[in-house]
Amino acid sequence: MLVIGEKINASNRSVGEAISRRDKEFILSLVKSQAEAGAHYIDVNAGAGKGSGENEMDAIEWLVDVVQDATDKPLTIDSESPAAIEAALKKCRGEDLMINSVTAEKSRLEPVGSLAAGRKAKLVALAMGEGGIPDTAEKRLEACEIIMTYLTGQGMQPEQVFFDPLVLPISVDSNQGLVTLKTIQQIKSRYPDAKTVMGLSNISFGLPARKMINRSFLLMAAYAGLDAAILDPVDTRMMSAVKAAELLTGKDPYCRSYLRAYRKGLIID
Amino acid sequence: MLVIGEKINASNRSVGEAISRRDKEFILSLVKSQAEAGAHYIDVNAGAGKGSGENEMDAIEWLVDVVQDATDKPLTIDSESPAAIEAALKKCRGEDLMINSVTAEKSRLEPVGSLAAGRKAKLVALAMGEGGIPDTAEKRLEACEIIMTYLTGQGMQPEQVFFDPLVLPISVDSNQGLVTLKTIQQIKSRYPDAKTVMGLSNISFGLPARKMINRSFLLMAAYAGLDAAILDPVDTRMMSAVKAAELLTGKDPYCRSYLRAYRKGLIID
Repeated sequence: MLVIGEKINASNRSVGEAISRRDKEFILSLVKSQAEAGAHYIDVNAGAGKGSGENEMDAIEWLVDVVQDATDKPLTIDSESPAAIEAALKKCRGEDLMINSVTAEKSRLEPVGSLAAGRKAKLVALAMGEGGIPDTAEKRLEACEIIMTYLTGQGMQPEQVFFDPLVLPISVDSNQGLVTLKTIQQIKSRYPDAKTVMGLSNISFGLPARKMINRSFLLMAAYAGLDAAILDPVDTRMMSAVKAAELLTGKDPYCRSYLRAYRKGLIID
Repeated sequence: MLVIGEKINASNRSVGEAISRRDKEFILSLVKSQAEAGAHYIDVNAGAGKGSGENEMDAIEWLVDVVQDATDKPLTIDSESPAAIEAALKKCRGEDLMINSVTAEKSRLEPVGSLAAGRKAKLVALAMGEGGIPDTAEKRLEACEIIMTYLTGQGMQPEQVFFDPLVLPISVDSNQGLVTLKTIQQIKSRYPDAKTVMGLSNISFGLPARKMINRSFLLMAAYAGLDAAILDPVDTRMMSAVKAAELLTGKDPYCRSYLRAYRKGLIID
């Protein structure tokens, strides 16, 4: 399972403030701890510097430089703004890159899809179009079809596309866990070469013991076919679940990766 | 998810010794703690009183009386001996009963199947025949077919049958997690009215942090279609996983059961 470290995100207040005051040390330390904990990609989101009047383009250019000073791990450039993504990509030194994200909406799909195609980047594609997150797997698949048709038309390979099945809170609709899991299965069945990715925390919104619910959902999603997750790699229980997911789905021959993580103290019982 | 409390089992040394010395208080306390923690059934296994020359029939008759003194929860009569099962059933007061277990082997299927049919009991049926646990889902399904044909011929309803897909250690063959999960899915697809049940601990044999692996496997199995599990209900992290499994598979409308468990202190984050 590909782990995308989620912590460099301006929507997290302390990170947003660190970006606003250009606090390099704060960011370096967050990046390093995620890299050491086993993140494969570092998500980089400069948001809009909440309430600061901050320019997201300036902020993400600074942030990409700082993150690359801290690690050689590839970055996931995370923004709703095609212009901010374009600015960030110019700063990225590595060849392996991920962009987060497009939807089936033309205004995001076309500019960001072209950037991903031009840079041969991996691209996170949210299974939604106009009008928000669909509440059924079928409608989410319709959005995937629009996205896949456009991106392959731009010369992208299906394996560059990381579909996010999207997650709505179980506290609002008790069926939403199954809707997301079914969406993952259907994506993997319809596009066997495409990948799947998701963030976990929405599922537990409004409920107590959220981390336990998020870990539990990761395990079910891994069996449904999840290839990558956006999560906090410094959360050792979560990373233990990632290792257990690999172990139990036949992706860890001779349990080597699990045993190595255990010896490093990265597995909690 | 139906929880079958596993602790009254003579293969656990302290329990075996308590049975041998007819230590009623020890057994009562183990039964009560499991019932309070949320077990739906109490498994009762008197083994063969290891090394004691103990008669299993005498032991299980005593044990059933003691367990029924401690709780009104239904029992799961667990033995490899048809004679011991028959003796135990005569002591059982309740109408709701489970027998653990038959296989596709004639010498177990026929006598124990007849007892279950006569008593209208639920019956755990291991997906194996002669020659040990098959290493593929296909061969396990062949055993299920022999069992289902015989039992329905005896007048049993499919919903009385709890198929155990069987679990082999992932440390021996990294594919065995998927074999068990696939077996569950195929059983639920071929026999939609039948139930599935399993014990969890074999999966993690030989590995460190076994409880975490077992919980993780429970979550995947719940998504694959597991209806019941034989486990230690006093393990709060395991019971938290059971509640999360129900929550995430659409079986807990309005999160009522989860929130009730949380308020009772039965959920750990």
